[in-house]
Amino acid sequence: MTQQVFYDAPMRRALELSERGQVTGGNPQVGCVLLDDTGRIVAEGWHRGAGTPHAEVDALSHLTDARGLTAVVTLEPCNHTGRTGPCSEALIAAGITRVVYAVSDPGRESAGGAERLRAAGVEVIPGVLATDVEQLLHIWLTAVARRRPWVTVKWASTLDGRAAASDGTSQWITGTAARQRVHEQRAASDAILVGTGTVYADDPQLTVRGDAGELLRHQHQPVPVVVGERPLPADAALRRHPAGVIETGTRDLGRVLADLDARGIRRVYVEGGPTLASAVVAAGLADEYAIYLAPALLGGEKLAIGDLGIRTIADARRLHIVSVEQLGEDLLVIARPTRTPENRGV
Amino acid sequence: MTQQVFYDAPMRRALELSERGQVTGGNPQVGCVLLDDTGRIVAEGWHRGAGTPHAEVDALSHLTDARGLTAVVTLEPCNHTGRTGPCSEALIAAGITRVVYAVSDPGRESAGGAERLRAAGVEVIPGVLATDVEQLLHIWLTAVARRRPWVTVKWASTLDGRAAASDGTSQWITGTAARQRVHEQRAASDAILVGTGTVYADDPQLTVRGDAGELLRHQHQPVPVVVGERPLPADAALRRHPAGVIETGTRDLGRVLADLDARGIRRVYVEGGPTLASAVVAAGLADEYAIYLAPALLGGEKLAIGDLGIRTIADARRLHIVSVEQLGEDLLVIARPTRTPENRGV
Repeated sequence: MTQQVFYDAPMRRALELSERGQVTGGNPQVGCVLLDDTGRIVAEGWHRGAGTPHAEVDALSHLTDARGLTAVVTLEPCNHTGRTGPCSEALIAAGITRVVYAVSDPGRESAGGAERLRAAGVEVIPGVLATDVEQLLHIWLTAVARRRPWVTVKWASTLDGRAAASDGTSQWITGTAARQRVHEQRAASDAILVGTGTVYADDPQLTVRGDAGELLRHQHQPVPVVVGERPLPADAALRRHPAGVIETGTRDLGRVLADLDARGIRRVYVEGGPTLASAVVAAGLADEYAIYLAPALLGGEKLAIGDLGIRTIADARRLHIVSVEQLGEDLLVIARPTRTPENRGV
Repeated sequence: MTQQVFYDAPMRRALELSERGQVTGGNPQVGCVLLDDTGRIVAEGWHRGAGTPHAEVDALSHLTDARGLTAVVTLEPCNHTGRTGPCSEALIAAGITRVVYAVSDPGRESAGGAERLRAAGVEVIPGVLATDVEQLLHIWLTAVARRRPWVTVKWASTLDGRAAASDGTSQWITGTAARQRVHEQRAASDAILVGTGTVYADDPQLTVRGDAGELLRHQHQPVPVVVGERPLPADAALRRHPAGVIETGTRDLGRVLADLDARGIRRVYVEGGPTLASAVVAAGLADEYAIYLAPALLGGEKLAIGDLGIRTIADARRLHIVSVEQLGEDLLVIARPTRTPENRGV
């Protein structure tokens, strides 16, 4: 207890550092500080994204001699040789004598760092500020533990739930502030799911663009993933996407998500069409909803969400609202599934 | 200008007093203060509702001698003998020498008070705090000037725009806080419109009830108005409504509203069913929307709003959001039509 309070402040600093890292790219945001005997921070580090040094190694790189220091790190040091070596070995080799961490590594390949450290005689203190760090890493932790990406389903509709007018026109239901937010949400995703129906009907670009429609070259561009059996047309705009394009050739969402997980994709943004959105919702695969509501009414048959296979009110898919925000004239409702007996575990 | 600033404070007091009156019953909320030579308020009055003394007469009733006083009143004194005599004559008879008011009476029968007062030698100063008073009386002024009630269309739906599940069940889409607000909105209306379809399907009570479902006997109960050609079933719950029931026998909304206007009904709350709500919206008769959004999804065909006769996105009925409020788990969006070339004057 005394120890934990002692390490709260450096862990809070490590958490701050971790937030400098990127949410996309498959790896978690991790921060690390190294303390001397008096509890003073002597080095800081954080992970900048897949393929770059992990937080512990980044912190160690600032020192020529780290012997006898304590490492405070937001995630259990990995025990896995990926594109970089295991952090457990790096800490042992550097002569670190104590490792304090917040959250255990849920990865099946990367876990085991604490055990390896203890075996090498390093003191290990887990669970410091675990709740705070779990909150920041919630999406990544969920995706890794479940072995499928976190799925955000986005749609834009009028207040009466229409995504288009009866002639199919839908530009623009929402205003520029809402559309810009969509681009930000794309940029915070690893992949964008789109159905073949939308590709054939709208030929979308699905790039992260700026206010004037210009491609944001310095922004992360998530890879578009086409769900459905029809082949991508030869002249589809998606073929010119800077991140390439993944053609799944299937409507089997379980298979699609398993494949994306294997590619290290943790965050999926479902944008593409009422059929795909409804299928994801009906399959209980939506972890989060980003619903843009334009202050307009359209009536007619072009619904943002089609059939969900729900017969009676008791089976309604219940959500809880995380936030409501006004963007220009539009509303953005962020919601997540409520754990009820009807949609347990979703 | 100097005069107007001088009368701002007493007018603000008259406005405060006016808000004690009721919004239902056909008459406007009006307040009045009487000032002596020094500008001191010597009497106050306000209108408590149809059939009771008007604000000016209420203020005069507190004095035995009002000669030489100034009356400051939010609405131009009426010149009309209804259930009470004309206020212009009462002020003249009492020896009031100056009348200051905010807003002119838009009523075709009751207008002319200022002219009558001037003819009797009373000084008249109109337009003091006109904007503030117009804001309070906006709905009443609009209804009287247009000779049809102000129409608020209410519906409750899931975030995907459904009012019921595919088997027709809809209890409860929204939670208790939202349902209680509906009862408050009913109580602030003169009449509730319901379609015959909803009467036959749901046999609603449409009474103002409390948290436990009990009839609120001390609350104003708006009269239910059944729109449609089918007769009210002999055993309909509406036949036991404490305010009675109006059977219109027609789907002609223009005729229905004209009839309600003739009955002194200024505020109509449209509750009853997707067919009626869609017809009111399609006819451009909605002055305000009260849209309850439950954080749930249903899919399927039971839409809160059906067809509106809109073919293309440019013809979308554009609204602007007045307020968004979280009620328990639900959202209440209040919106009004935007004046655009497409829905001019609506």
